Order: sequence, then C-alpha cells, then structure tokens
Amino acid sequence: MNRLQLIAAIKEKQSYLCVGLDTDITKIPQYLQTNPNAVLAFNKAIIDATKNYCVAYKINTAFYEAMGVKGWHIIEETCNYIPTTHFKIADAKRGDIGNTSAQYAKTFFETFAFDAVTVAPYMGEDSVRPFLEYQNKFTIVLGLTSNAGSNDFQKLIIHSTKKEKKLYQIILEKIANWGNANNLMFVVGATQANDLQDIRSIIPNNFLLIPGVGAQGGSLAEVSKYGLNKDCGLLINASRNIIYASNNNNFSEAALQVANNYTIEMQEHLKTIWY
Amino acid sequence: MNRLQLIAAIKEKQSYLCVGLDTDITKIPQYLQTNPNAVLAFNKAIIDATKNYCVAYKINTAFYEAMGVKGWHIIEETCNYIPTTHFKIADAKRGDIGNTSAQYAKTFFETFAFDAVTVAPYMGEDSVRPFLEYQNKFTIVLGLTSNAGSNDFQKLIIHSTKKEKKLYQIILEKIANWGNANNLMFVVGATQANDLQDIRSIIPNNFLLIPGVGAQGGSLAEVSKYGLNKDCGLLINASRNIIYASNNNNFSEAALQVANNYTIEMQEHLKTIWY
Repeated sequence: MNRLQLIAAIKEKQSYLCVGLDTDITKIPQYLQTNPNAVLAFNKAIIDATKNYCVAYKINTAFYEAMGVKGWHIIEETCNYIPTTHFKIADAKRGDIGNTSAQYAKTFFETFAFDAVTVAPYMGEDSVRPFLEYQNKFTIVLGLTSNAGSNDFQKLIIHSTKKEKKLYQIILEKIANWGNANNLMFVVGATQANDLQDIRSIIPNNFLLIPGVGAQGGSLAEVSKYGLNKDCGLLINASRNIIYASNNNNFSEAALQVANNYTIEMQEHLKTIWY
Repeated sequence: MNRLQLIAAIKEKQSYLCVGLDTDITKIPQYLQTNPNAVLAFNKAIIDATKNYCVAYKINTAFYEAMGVKGWHIIEETCNYIPTTHFKIADAKRGDIGNTSAQYAKTFFETFAFDAVTVAPYMGEDSVRPFLEYQNKFTIVLGLTSNAGSNDFQKLIIHSTKKEKKLYQIILEKIANWGNANNLMFVVGATQANDLQDIRSIIPNNFLLIPGVGAQGGSLAEVSKYGLNKDCGLLINASRNIIYASNNNNFSEAALQVANNYTIEMQEHLKTIWY
C-alpha cells in the first residue's frame, strides 16, 4: 500500500486508527486458551471486529517471538489474514550494519508481506538505507518514543554553534533527508504532545506513527491538534485498550466498541483539515 | 554461562574469539545448497570445526528471520547444537518499551537458551532493564558500533557545563550504572580502536563484544592493546572471514584454520595480562 492509497483509506473510513496486535496468550480470554491456535484465533476475531474502524494493523513482533518458532507462524498467518485494504506494520525496532539491515528489510518486505517496519536510528545511515530501497514500502524510524526512557537519551541537548537542538530533533532532520514522505515515517509517542509542534516544523509531510494513546495515557485530542497535517499524516496506534477491552467471550464486540469510539472522535478531528 | 565461567573458558583456551554465524544461504558452498537443511548443516560443520578455537558463538538473527518461519527453526537448532561450554549470543539488536522488551528478554533467555542478547539503547532505561533482570544472563548494549553510520549520531557532542562528551560516552556512563560487569556488556566496533582507551576509562570492567575484525577491517592487535583488561574483558567476533573462508567442500577446514590463526595471535596478546 502506498501513501496515496493510505490517505484514500483514511478519507473513506474517516479514521486514522491503527490497531496494535500485541497479543499475549496469558491475557486473552480464558475460554480461548484451550484452543491450540488461540493467539491466531484471537487475532482473527480482533481483525474481523475492528477492520471497518481502522486503516492499519501493527504486529508487535516481540509478543510472537517469545512463543518461539510457533510465534513466527502466527506472525505470518496474521499478516496474511489482514485485508489488503489495510496498512500492515511490523513493529520490530530493527537496525544493524548495512548487510544485516538488508536481511531485516528482506524479512519484513519480501519474506513477509508487511507495508512498513519500525527501525531504530542509533546505528545511522547505512542501518536505515536498506529499508528505504524498497518501492512502496515504508520505513518507520523511532523519533521521540512514548516511554519514560525517552528522557534518558532522546532529549539530550546537542552542542552546536547555532540553535540548541535535542538529539531526537537532529535525528529527525537528518533522517528525513535520507527518504521522503512516500517511504519514510517516524514514531512519536502520544505522551509527547508538547513536542509535536516542533516536530511538525521539522517534518511537516511525513506520516507519524503515534503509539501511547490508551494504556500509556496519551491524549488523542492533543496529538491530533498538533500532529494532523493536510493529508492527515497520523496513524494513531491503540493496542491493549482495544484488544483487551473485555476478558470474556464478548471480547471482539468490546474491541469493536472501543475502536468505533476512536473513529467517532477522529471524524471530528479530521473536520479541522478536510471540511 | 556466567562471567567467571566465561573467563575460565578464555584462560583454558587462550582465546577470546567469538565466531559469528551470519549464515546466508546464497554464500554457502554450492554442493550444500541442495540439502534441505543446508543452513543448519553448514552451521553444525562450522561449529564442529571451530569449537576448540573459540569461546563464544554469535547468531545474527537477521539472516535467519529473512528465511521466515524455517529460519527460526534453524536459530533454535543451532543454539541447541552449540556446546554448553560456549557462550551463546543472540545478535538481535532488540529494544522497546518495558512490557515489550520483557517479551524480547523472554524470547532469547527463556524460549531460546542464549546467554546474551544485543540491545539498542535509544529508548532508554525501561527498554534495557527487563533484560538485566535475568540471573546469569548478559545484556550487550550498543555503545560505539563498527559501521560508517556510527558517525551520524553516536559521536554527536552533548552540551554540558562540564567536560564535553560524545553521545555514546553518555550512553556508556549511564547504562553502566543500570547493571554491572556480571550482567552487562557493550558493543564496541573494532574499527573504533582510537576510542577504546576512553571507553575503558568509562567502563573498565565490563566485557566488550567487538565486531568488525576481518571483513570490516578492524585490527585485532589494536583492539587488544587498548581493550584488554585484567579479566581479558574482550570477545572478538569474526563472521564472514571465518565462515566463508572457503567456498568449496573444504570450507570447515578453512574456517578452522582462520579461527586457529586468531587464537594464535590472541595467545600472544593474553600474555600482556596473564603472564
């Protein structure tokens, strides 16, 4: 799925919601846990229930890798089950020297059919470029993350003769030049809404993947106010508060309701740019 | 394997070599490629040939993930095939928010039987802590990497009222306090020997995992001169120049020879600390 198709999907659904499939077998309803394919069955039910209310799904690879080989089967089957009308993100935070990053890019863009993968910036240009070489695929680089640890290094002040800048700002500026809005997005945590205006001044056109709404406490209203651009430019991820909305056999209906509530609020925010 | 056992293995073998299993099916000998388990057969032959000359193996997960589900089978089987006398490293460069890093730690320390995993520092403390919580396991955090991209962000000068410091120095200082020499190592590229003296002044006791000797051009002599500490404190990784030493059916013998050559040189360097 390319950028124009993503924007068209957002316009059609009036939603910029991404549902995060961080599926932990210990947290899914008890009655499903006896199913030998419990996690896949759970994912399919969540996808069926939410697909009319979201434009993207994000698979957090960690939760599947922890299951070992079986978990990679479930990544593959879940990825294939997501409708082609939806943008498929592998949230994998990969990044290594060039020849190794090329293998990771192959993993998510060729071996599996993801549209995008999250990438860590610390190792610099040759660790990011191999992902950007794919046509109609997106590299989503960590900018300013949603967690408490984002204060440890990402906000360090970089010494400069000009204006003082934070590390994450330097990272956004530099990496934005390695790609463009058609192949490059950035992760900005919903808990960092105060910094979003500055971020939009650095990268006005790139889509931002925004985790941290819901369980982590970020505000959809704040993020939308400062983050929306003329093409929407946001994918708001919610995971735990959608997929674990209920722990009973009505879990998919409960997930649908939470996803729908996000969409209703998003329709209002989109009016600020498209009406 | 704990720190004392690792040091004992180094003393016994007079080697601090780590063999990197970055196995790419397109690069292994032609005659093996018809074998349905070619990569595993290759890894086993390399392990059999080199195990007397090294103390550790490093599995670069990217090369296996690119094969899909089958690749994770091979990670598991290779990990299980490495003798328990050897230190087993998953070179995976993971790191995410706390609940997700906990899943990655579970993956490599519980689901698979690795002794150590490489971790990216950008997301800060809560992304590193879950790995450190395991007893007798090692978290190997990226410090200063071997690739050209290490110049993009790792060496940025951090603004400070005191002495000027580079980003990677701040990262080493801070993260060293989250763990200790018994559960924390750092990656420092062999191509960065000029910085090793400074690095040893920040982290005198931690083991360093040093990639970049061989194909990437780092010098074993330089790295040993500035990096060795009283416990050795180094694991020198070589991958491509050992595992692809020959492309014929004598590949394992050729790998043995290259590994043995490293060991012979290492014996000389170890005399500077232990004789």
